[in-house]
Parts: sequence; structure tokens; C-alpha cells
Amino acid sequence: MSDTRTRLPNELGTSLQAGDDAATAELLDELVHTGEITEILEALTSDDRRRLAVVLEDNEPAELLEDLDPIEAAEILSALTIDQAARVLETVDTDNAVDIVSEIESDRAEQILVAMDFETARELRELLVYPPDTAGGRMTPAFVSVDPHLRADQAVVALRQVAQEAETIYYVYVTDNDDKLLGVLSLRNLVLSPPETPVSDLMVRQMIAVLDTADQEIAARTLNEHDLLALPVVDEAYRLLGIITADDVADILEEEATEDIERLGGSEPLEEPYLRASPFLLWRKRVVWLLVLFLAAAYTTTVLQYFEDELDAAVALAFFIPLLIGTGGNVGSQVVTTIVRAMAVEDIRLGDIVRVVSKEARVGVMLGLVMSAVMFGRAVMLRTGFDIALIVASSVLIIVFWATLVGSVLPLALRRVGVDPAVVSAPLISTLVDGTGLIIYFMIARVVLT
Amino acid sequence: MSDTRTRLPNELGTSLQAGDDAATAELLDELVHTGEITEILEALTSDDRRRLAVVLEDNEPAELLEDLDPIEAAEILSALTIDQAARVLETVDTDNAVDIVSEIESDRAEQILVAMDFETARELRELLVYPPDTAGGRMTPAFVSVDPHLRADQAVVALRQVAQEAETIYYVYVTDNDDKLLGVLSLRNLVLSPPETPVSDLMVRQMIAVLDTADQEIAARTLNEHDLLALPVVDEAYRLLGIITADDVADILEEEATEDIERLGGSEPLEEPYLRASPFLLWRKRVVWLLVLFLAAAYTTTVLQYFEDELDAAVALAFFIPLLIGTGGNVGSQVVTTIVRAMAVEDIRLGDIVRVVSKEARVGVMLGLVMSAVMFGRAVMLRTGFDIALIVASSVLIIVFWATLVGSVLPLALRRVGVDPAVVSAPLISTLVDGTGLIIYFMIARVVLT
Repeated sequence: MSDTRTRLPNELGTSLQAGDDAATAELLDELVHTGEITEILEALTSDDRRRLAVVLEDNEPAELLEDLDPIEAAEILSALTIDQAARVLETVDTDNAVDIVSEIESDRAEQILVAMDFETARELRELLVYPPDTAGGRMTPAFVSVDPHLRADQAVVALRQVAQEAETIYYVYVTDNDDKLLGVLSLRNLVLSPPETPVSDLMVRQMIAVLDTADQEIAARTLNEHDLLALPVVDEAYRLLGIITADDVADILEEEATEDIERLGGSEPLEEPYLRASPFLLWRKRVVWLLVLFLAAAYTTTVLQYFEDELDAAVALAFFIPLLIGTGGNVGSQVVTTIVRAMAVEDIRLGDIVRVVSKEARVGVMLGLVMSAVMFGRAVMLRTGFDIALIVASSVLIIVFWATLVGSVLPLALRRVGVDPAVVSAPLISTLVDGTGLIIYFMIARVVLT
Repeated sequence: MSDTRTRLPNELGTSLQAGDDAATAELLDELVHTGEITEILEALTSDDRRRLAVVLEDNEPAELLEDLDPIEAAEILSALTIDQAARVLETVDTDNAVDIVSEIESDRAEQILVAMDFETARELRELLVYPPDTAGGRMTPAFVSVDPHLRADQAVVALRQVAQEAETIYYVYVTDNDDKLLGVLSLRNLVLSPPETPVSDLMVRQMIAVLDTADQEIAARTLNEHDLLALPVVDEAYRLLGIITADDVADILEEEATEDIERLGGSEPLEEPYLRASPFLLWRKRVVWLLVLFLAAAYTTTVLQYFEDELDAAVALAFFIPLLIGTGGNVGSQVVTTIVRAMAVEDIRLGDIVRVVSKEARVGVMLGLVMSAVMFGRAVMLRTGFDIALIVASSVLIIVFWATLVGSVLPLALRRVGVDPAVVSAPLISTLVDGTGLIIYFMIARVVLT
């Protein structure tokens, strides 16, 4: 593996730079077959990619482009003329072609669409209206449908005629004259049933479908939950528009998990691969939340200023500030990531709020007791006196309990009022707990020290 | 949807409590067809589940049990006698049966295996030796294989005979007499080719497979990357042992993403659904890291004690501690979650370390400048004097830059020395940045104030 990874891209680079088109075509063929093509194309320089585009023209580019990230495929196409790009795109699967076209700058994309075969361009335009993260934006119109009046053997013949273009022929959809979805049958049933069986006897009527406007995550979860190979996408009138195939599910769920993770970490989702993101984009995705969190945390200075007398009287109180609020923040981060993820994968629903909070309350007490003991130990080690040790130990008990509650209640409460709980990041909980934790700390200090 | 969700479980509960087996069986049938069965069974009380087990016996339980979480399926089986449970398990798909058996307490599981059909029990025992998170632990032996000497039409006839038991018949594997994997052909090709074509002409030889001992995540990523419907699992001698089907991929990747998220949040992965986890389990998964982080953070008290003179001289310095280290922690959390996730989905590899760090360094400077400006503003608002404003503004600039570097370098450095970067949680980075941030702050204070 690691050998191929270094050898082949070098060879490909060499043959491209030497202009040896025959060798390049042969190498490409080998790469597609070993399945290493994506990684290797990603490792090429932009210059080499442009040279590659010219070679591609004469060598069935569809498979190659489909394996690439759409952004990279668009980049390769940019080295071609409008007409060349149109010819190449005509050979690419519609759902991949849509993703590639969306990455091409819009004036040029329009020129390419005009230069393309009319029917293919029409299909592309229909898909281009959907936002990319909807079921419509993910679907392919390359499904197979048959008439309900056919027999099994006639359906197989019908299949043979369209199989070349279809994304999958393992599910055959049954539609009426208005394209309304009536049912689905599997190639498995079709092949295993007596040839004269009517299609309408083989098909499953009570079937699962999603609306074209549904979020792609809903489509992916539905497909996955029911272990389907493909999911029909329909409009309000239940007309079959396209299908989403099982190979998209993992990609969709990975994308969504990445977004959730980035949000939980306290930034806006990047929405593109890390290495492609410019420093400015990274800055923009982070700075907004940093400023929000700064504003939320700014009152900690006010809190401390308010307790200036306590601080002046016992500067040792200041020593424990980072450790106390750090522990609170750590607990908050643990709780909120667990809860928000469990909500995302639907392990926790809104109706579970009481169960969740009562469970977390118990965990909070148990964690608080442990942290209280070690905090007391730390204070004794530092010889800050019994008073301070008592203050920090009881503070951390309450802060840990409080952080657990905030971390578990806030995501569920936000969902209840209709806000996406993914806005509750670990840094947000830490920040909220920081200020309230300080108040708890100094209130206890005031009581104990006076 | 929400209507069914409340109506059907109630009806099911009622019919179970009334002992109306016919009504229960009918309802179950309806639930399986609407695909709501999982959610509804999960909502049943344990008592109702036990009653259900008795009804199940006479009513094709396989489909039901396969749709359930293995833990819940095991719970339902526990209401049956050993013999009843054995009969039921014989009807369940092997890969699901393995998951269910692993959730049954080991003495009872052994008794059930002994009571089962010999051949099925042998298959189960073979799979039970694999850890559940390996390719072997995930595979099903219910694949279809044919001899390379058959013709296409003979292969279809062979298929018909085994189709009933097979997990998928869309990929047909070609093996020799020693079960060695020679190639694969798709049902699609089989159906669309002339009947007399030899199987060996139709099959793809250069194929993708995983070892039985490989991590399940590698299997899932391979399947997904190549858009396959199933992936063959082989032993060292390339003998075909089983297949992993596409419907497992999303589940595996979701599981892995959940583990990553829980680790990033600073706890050990729960490894079971949140609502099933006891408070004690939650406590145990969190307390270890909390204590580690406490130890790592404990030196912040030492740092502050060391700078006691500076604190005494200007207590206003203490006001900014939470805001300064909070901001550092937030930046660290943003960076580390983005980087660790990008490494998990292989957007970033070890070789990219220079690109990543130089990009993050630029982002760090840009973020630092913004935060420095607002921090200066906050200090001016609090009327703490120009000196303090200068100290906090320059400290936050350096701390933000430092947090960005630590958050990006640490995961990559750990990977380089062979440690799983998932141990680098957001709380860990925050904690590391807290102490060093304080040192930076007070060093600057010492220089400015003296």
C-alpha cells in the first residue's frame, strides 16, 4: 500500500510532464482498478492536473471524475474548453455531475450547460435547484421504473434496456402514468420468482420514501434504519423524482458528524476538507464564536472586581481560580458532548428529559464528591490553611454538580424551544460555568471567612 | 408519524397485558411493515417485553429480533426457556444472532448454543471468537459463492437454491475448492449477460477484501470508499470467511464518530446507548479523565503562588485570569476538535504536519490580534489602568497563538509517535493552555510592572 502510494503518483507525474499520453492512460487504468485513484489524484500538483485533463479527453474520464472530490473534478475540468468540458460531463453520472457543476464558477457553468446535450443539461438543471444538503440535492434521477402491468420476465427485459444508465438495478420502482410511486420490487425477487408473475404481485406497496425538500440527514438515517439499498425521493404529489443510494449514506452521516464535532468544539462547520480551507476561512469560522464567548465570559472580570475585598484579604483564593473553573469546564464539556451526540443519533429524545437530568444529577454528585476530596488534598498540600481548603473543597462539589446540570439541561431545553442543540458547544458550557462557578466560590468564601 | 408513535405502543401494551395473542401478532405485523417496530419495542416496559417473548415463539420472531438493539433482543429472549430461545435464535441471521448471543450471560448462552441445531451453533461459535469491533466480528457467513467453471445460467440456478439464506445475492463470490477467493461478479452482470458466458469471464479478479482481524472501521471505510454493496472478509490464506454488507457501514462509522466525540469531550467512550448507561458507568467513564486533568491543572495553583507578589501588588491582575485562560481554552478546543476530526476522516495525514502547522500559525496570529483588541477594550472599560490593559492585551495575543499551535501540533505529534490522537481532548488542550497561559501572563506582568 505505502509503496503504491509513493510510486504511482511519481510515475503519473513523470508521464504527465513527459507528455507521454499512452503511458498516462495506462497508469490511470491501473490506478482505477487498484482503487488508489482518489488519493493519487489528490496528491498531484495543479499543473499536472491540467495536463491530465487533456489526456482525459480521449480516455473515458467519467469513472475518474466520479471518484474525485467534486472540487478537484471541477478544477480538472477548468483546464478544458467549454465544449470539451461539456462532452466530458455528459458521460458523468447525473448526481456526481451536479456536484461538480456546483463547484464551477457560475458563468462558466452556465456556458457548459448550454453546450451540453439538451436532455442531460435539463436533468442537471432540475437537480441544481436543490440545496446540496437536501434529499433532492443528493438524489440521482438514474433509477429504474416499470409499469405495474408487466410480468416478471417482461420487467427483466425492460431492465436490460435501461441497466446501462441506471445507478442501481437492484431496486425496481413501479410507477403509474403520472410517475406516481406505487411500490418497489427487488431484482432478487424478480430473478427468483416464476417468469409469469405480475409485477404488481411482487411489489411492496407500503414503502418508505422521503420528500425532495427533506434534510439529507433524515434521508440517510431513514435509509440506514431500514437497511435499504436505495430510498425513493418524491415530491408532495408522491411523484418519483429520484433515488438516494446506500453508498451515499455513510458520506452524508460522516459529513453531519464532522459538522457536529466542529460545532461542539466551538466553531462554525468548515463545510470543506481541512486542507482546502484557507487560513482566512478557518479564522472566520472561529472568530465569531470566540467573540460571543468572550462577551459571555467578560462578566467574570466584573464578578472578580465585585469580590475584590475577599481577594485582597486572602490572595490565596486567587490561586485556585483556574483549577476550580477548569474542573467545572471539564465536567461541562464531558456532559454536553455526550448529551448532544446522543441527541444527534436519537438515543435521547425530548421526552427523556426527566430521565436524563435525574441520571446526570446523580452522576454530578458522585463526581463532585471525588473532585472535592482531591481538591481538599491539593489545598492541604499547598498549606493554605483549613479555611481555604474547606472553601475550595465545598466549591468544587457544587460547581461540578452545577456543570453537570447545565450541560445536560441546556441542550434539551434548547431543543424544546426549537433551537438546534448543536449550538451548545463545550466552550459555551465552560464559559457559562466559569462565571457562575466564581460566584459560587466567592459566596462560600465570604460566608466562611467572615 | 407522531400519531403512530403514541398510538401503537399503547395498543401493543394493551393487547399484551390482555393476553390477546392474535391481536398482538397482528399489531406486530403492522409495526414491522411500517418500519416503526424498533422505536416501539424500545418504548415497552420489561414486563410487556417478557409477555411479548411468549407471543413471539409462534410468530416468526426473526425479523423482529433483527430489528432490535441486540441488548434488547437478548432481554426478550431471557423470558424464554433454553429450548425456546434456541429455536428462536436458529431463525435469526447469523451476524445478528452473534450480537444477541454476546449480550446473553455466558452460562446461559452456552446452554442455548448446546440446545441449538449443530451446524448453526458451529457457525455462531466461529464468529463469537472475534472481538465485536473487528471485521470478523461484524461479518456474516451468509454469502453466496459459486464455482469458477459454471456458466452464467447455471450460476443463476445455483443462486436460487441458496438465495433464501443469503444476506445479499447481489454480489456472487467465486471460490476454489479450498474456499480461496478468486473473484466476484454482480447479479447485475449475471442477469444482463448471455446465459452461456462462463462465470470466470464475468468475474472481477482484482478485488478488494479485508482481513478478519482488521478493525471494523477500516472495513467500513474501505466499503464506503469503493461504493461497494458488500466487502469480502478473508483470512491470511485469502480464504473467504464472510462478508460485511453496506448496511453495516453507516452503523460502524456512527459508532466510531460517537466514540471520537465522547473522547474529544474528555471522557472515555460509553460503548452503549446513553439511556442504557447507569449513573455509575457514566461516572466511571468520566472520573478517570477528570482526575488526570486535575493533576495536569494542579500546577496552576503553584504558578499563581509563585507570582503571589505580582498578585498582591496588583489584584486587578486576578480579575482577568478566567477571561484570559478561558479564551485560550476556547481556541484550543476549536483547533483540536477540527484537527482530530480531520485526521479521523483522513483529510489530514501525518505527512501534512508542516502544512497544517503553518496554516494554523497564520490563523493563530489573526485570531490573536482580534482577541487582543477586544481584551484591551474590556480592560479600558474596567478602568484598570493602561499598564494592566497593555498586559492583558499582549498576553491574550500570545496565549491564543500558543493555544492554536498546541492544539494543532499535539494530535499530529502523538500520531507520529504511535499514540491515538483521540486521547487529545478539548479539556486536555484547555488544561495545558491554562497553566502555560498563566505563566505567559505573569511574566509579561512582571516585565511591564517593574
